[in-house]
Amino acid sequence: MYVDLNCDMGESFGTYRLGNDEKILDFVTSANIACGFHAGDPSTMRKTVKLALEKNVGIGVHPGLQDLAGFGRREMKISAQEAYDIVIYQIGALSAFVKSEGGNIQHVKPHGALYNMAAKDASLADAIAEAIYKVDPEMILFGLAGSELVKAGKKIGLRTASEVFSDRTYHQDGSLTSRRETNALIKDHEMAVKQVIRMVKEGKVRSLQGVDVSIQADTVCIHGDGDQALEFAKYIKTALNEAGITVKKIGDFLS
Amino acid sequence: MYVDLNCDMGESFGTYRLGNDEKILDFVTSANIACGFHAGDPSTMRKTVKLALEKNVGIGVHPGLQDLAGFGRREMKISAQEAYDIVIYQIGALSAFVKSEGGNIQHVKPHGALYNMAAKDASLADAIAEAIYKVDPEMILFGLAGSELVKAGKKIGLRTASEVFSDRTYHQDGSLTSRRETNALIKDHEMAVKQVIRMVKEGKVRSLQGVDVSIQADTVCIHGDGDQALEFAKYIKTALNEAGITVKKIGDFLS
Amino acid sequence: MYVDLNCDMGESFGTYRLGNDEKILDFVTSANIACGFHAGDPSTMRKTVKLALEKNVGIGVHPGLQDLAGFGRREMKISAQEAYDIVIYQIGALSAFVKSEGGNIQHVKPHGALYNMAAKDASLADAIAEAIYKVDPEMILFGLAGSELVKAGKKIGLRTASEVFSDRTYHQDGSLTSRRETNALIKDHEMAVKQVIRMVKEGKVRSLQGVDVSIQADTVCIHGDGDQALEFAKYIKTALNEAGITVKKIGDFLS
Amino acid sequence: MYVDLNCDMGESFGTYRLGNDEKILDFVTSANIACGFHAGDPSTMRKTVKLALEKNVGIGVHPGLQDLAGFGRREMKISAQEAYDIVIYQIGALSAFVKSEGGNIQHVKPHGALYNMAAKDASLADAIAEAIYKVDPEMILFGLAGSELVKAGKKIGLRTASEVFSDRTYHQDGSLTSRRETNALIKDHEMAVKQVIRMVKEGKVRSLQGVDVSIQADTVCIHGDGDQALEFAKYIKTALNEAGITVKKIGDFLS
Repeated sequence: MYVDLNCDMGESFGTYRLGNDEKILDFVTSANIACGFHAGDPSTMRKTVKLALEKNVGIGVHPGLQDLAGFGRREMKISAQEAYDIVIYQIGALSAFVKSEGGNIQHVKPHGALYNMAAKDASLADAIAEAIYKVDPEMILFGLAGSELVKAGKKIGLRTASEVFSDRTYHQDGSLTSRRETNALIKDHEMAVKQVIRMVKEGKVRSLQGVDVSIQADTVCIHGDGDQALEFAKYIKTALNEAGITVKKIGDFLS
Repeated sequence: MYVDLNCDMGESFGTYRLGNDEKILDFVTSANIACGFHAGDPSTMRKTVKLALEKNVGIGVHPGLQDLAGFGRREMKISAQEAYDIVIYQIGALSAFVKSEGGNIQHVKPHGALYNMAAKDASLADAIAEAIYKVDPEMILFGLAGSELVKAGKKIGLRTASEVFSDRTYHQDGSLTSRRETNALIKDHEMAVKQVIRMVKEGKVRSLQGVDVSIQADTVCIHGDGDQALEFAKYIKTALNEAGITVKKIGDFLS
Repeated sequence: MYVDLNCDMGESFGTYRLGNDEKILDFVTSANIACGFHAGDPSTMRKTVKLALEKNVGIGVHPGLQDLAGFGRREMKISAQEAYDIVIYQIGALSAFVKSEGGNIQHVKPHGALYNMAAKDASLADAIAEAIYKVDPEMILFGLAGSELVKAGKKIGLRTASEVFSDRTYHQDGSLTSRRETNALIKDHEMAVKQVIRMVKEGKVRSLQGVDVSIQADTVCIHGDGDQALEFAKYIKTALNEAGITVKKIGDFLS
Repeated sequence: MYVDLNCDMGESFGTYRLGNDEKILDFVTSANIACGFHAGDPSTMRKTVKLALEKNVGIGVHPGLQDLAGFGRREMKISAQEAYDIVIYQIGALSAFVKSEGGNIQHVKPHGALYNMAAKDASLADAIAEAIYKVDPEMILFGLAGSELVKAGKKIGLRTASEVFSDRTYHQDGSLTSRRETNALIKDHEMAVKQVIRMVKEGKVRSLQGVDVSIQADTVCIHGDGDQALEFAKYIKTALNEAGITVKKIGDFLS
């Protein structure tokens, strides 16, 4: 019984520092590396790729909307063609750093608003899946469990990893509770980890409405910034191991 | 006896159109495609790659300084490491479009100020050559004939193409006359073509100082915008053929 | 009986040219000058301000979303606070050029997606109106006739100009027919001008549904690019004059 | 006997935080606020202007090169016209926030590479001084003591503030020792403050070559980031007071 822990990385930009990449890489198994659109820059990409390779962490492309000022978190009405084009571009940019350092891309996980839009909008999801498939069909697509993005990936023939969140609550339709609602966040670490363990072992999560929902949990999103990021990363890794779940990079166990 | 004709392309951006790519591709053999730093954007890159593949023109990466406002023509004091990083990034971005369309990258030609700085600054030149080599040592490096960039490419083990200009005059040290000087430009088409023919056949160019200078001419820079661009492209191609020089993409004849 | 003709201007960027500003300025009475977010740059702003002052055309700020790649036409989910901030910024940037050339700002007209979002979203509209009011309450706010933006301007105490379109059809609720629908555009110049004349004289427009709608027509949007832009600008100016409507800059007649 | 203490501020960008503006504002008398070209963004500008007004600190425009990736520290070969245009633009952008909050601009201090280039290049210096003068001749120009920028300001009729550095050593020609040389920095706080006190009281600084150089000291540059920034700001303010030098904003004592 396996699960992957992924974390967004390489989100520094120029003189600006963000996150705690070097330390968090000791606890996660997959790194989603920003590609310069919502965050990151060529030098940060190179350094982050090197670090991930040194620590044997799976390298992922983390393409975002072209909105540095908004950190890629503001929805933009882009066309499916635009989504396809920006994803190809960013996959390529990161791939060249990975190739030049002797590594391989393991996965692609869209960032922020692009991830959220592609969870619900099938045409954006299809465009993103196609972009990945046409550059390299061996790359794994990360998407929200149950989302259009995961469906689009399966449809085109990509391996997909269903992502779950330890610190977010779910509705009975399997969607995440919006951050604007109260009860969106699970702040208690023990409860957060229990939710993940049940997702991995039983394929179920208790929704806010009190009923169980089926959920596929291949990879868990770990936050890289904030005071407790590192502490929680250690905690969840240990707890998963104790529960008999091996934390391993997705490319090593996903069929 | 062969020569390559190269032209900058894909320099439109968003709603802005530049150049006459589709038509000029009928006359040149290598296309230097902008990668979004000095010009170009993901959608333009995809379209330009497709066009170049359809017309069997050699595809080149055309990396520039991150200066869209200045079209990459303003010198910036970047470090060798920064040059390395921005070149890797841009090679990757274009490569993904080329791969997704089933083609291959033939060459890399730095743009504008990056090209000019790398012609004279050995450390920048080395950094660019290393960036190319580490991503794919099969790519050909285009540099000004006699420049540090060509030397750096040879040193690291890349195939290099020495670029000459039909419409620019040369000094007796082999450098181009600065555009700020009078006599920098050769406006007469016949003289321009004669200069190229002699460069290719004899490996010589008559300098402004009246003495011959040795010059290697593997590829000729053709301008893609301006009223006479298309007309001149046709003219030089015909004249070279008539002089017994076959116009061919560099990847097909460079040893 | 007066009407203002306004046109978007100064939308060139760096090496990229757009529009036909110098010529179109002979026919319009108000210029909406881009401020570097969706288009334009400092040099273009300076030149466009100078031209507008020379031709005695009313100068307007034309703030857009920070989306150069999408020309400010892609909706972005920005907060009201973000809208306020980007509008203040852009008003200021243009104002300094106007001040340095000895002129005054006449009006503010949001661009593209910002204009469209503010037409429907009252909180964005309020934020934009407040931004204008706090920098200079003498500036006139241009908004779609009947929109939330015009309402927000009146509410805060700004003078507002209701904008109408000659080449767009209207629904019976006073909204523009979406460009995605057929029948959105009026391509016949004579019909286009007749629609405007009726709007100005009678305050009415015949909707697609066949019923008349009340509409306030203070200023007419004239397009600056496209082959027929200049021709149509001349045509409508002449036709309005012949119909007894004086074409005049809004600041000279709006009470 | 007066001196001004100035500090760069508002250099956060989007999600990225930089500096310790709120606290440092308690110790400095003039704030140089970034304007979105090398750092800063509209929201940060608004917040920083508000803070500075609350703490009665003199507000300055801090225009930089359009190089967010390089934080405006990389020299770019811009023309005098380009310098003029980007300075006008940035003055305007900040002015609108200041006006909307009911304040006034006190000064303009170019940032990073623009400051350094304008210290030596008279044509850039003239362009910057003219830009300031044409927008508002009441604004004070900050430049390196003895620089071309200060000369250009005086020539056109601006009030100028000669800036000195507490933590940098000087050559006998009055120029700063380059950071690339050893001995460029004065790390001892006591020595740093002594250097400033002598500059203010005697108008002299001991150069690295051991001879005294005449220097005008109207304002002292205080760094806002780094661990010791706040501590040093407190220390120098106290020490200056004890030496009988009143720390006061430049606009309140410069004639």
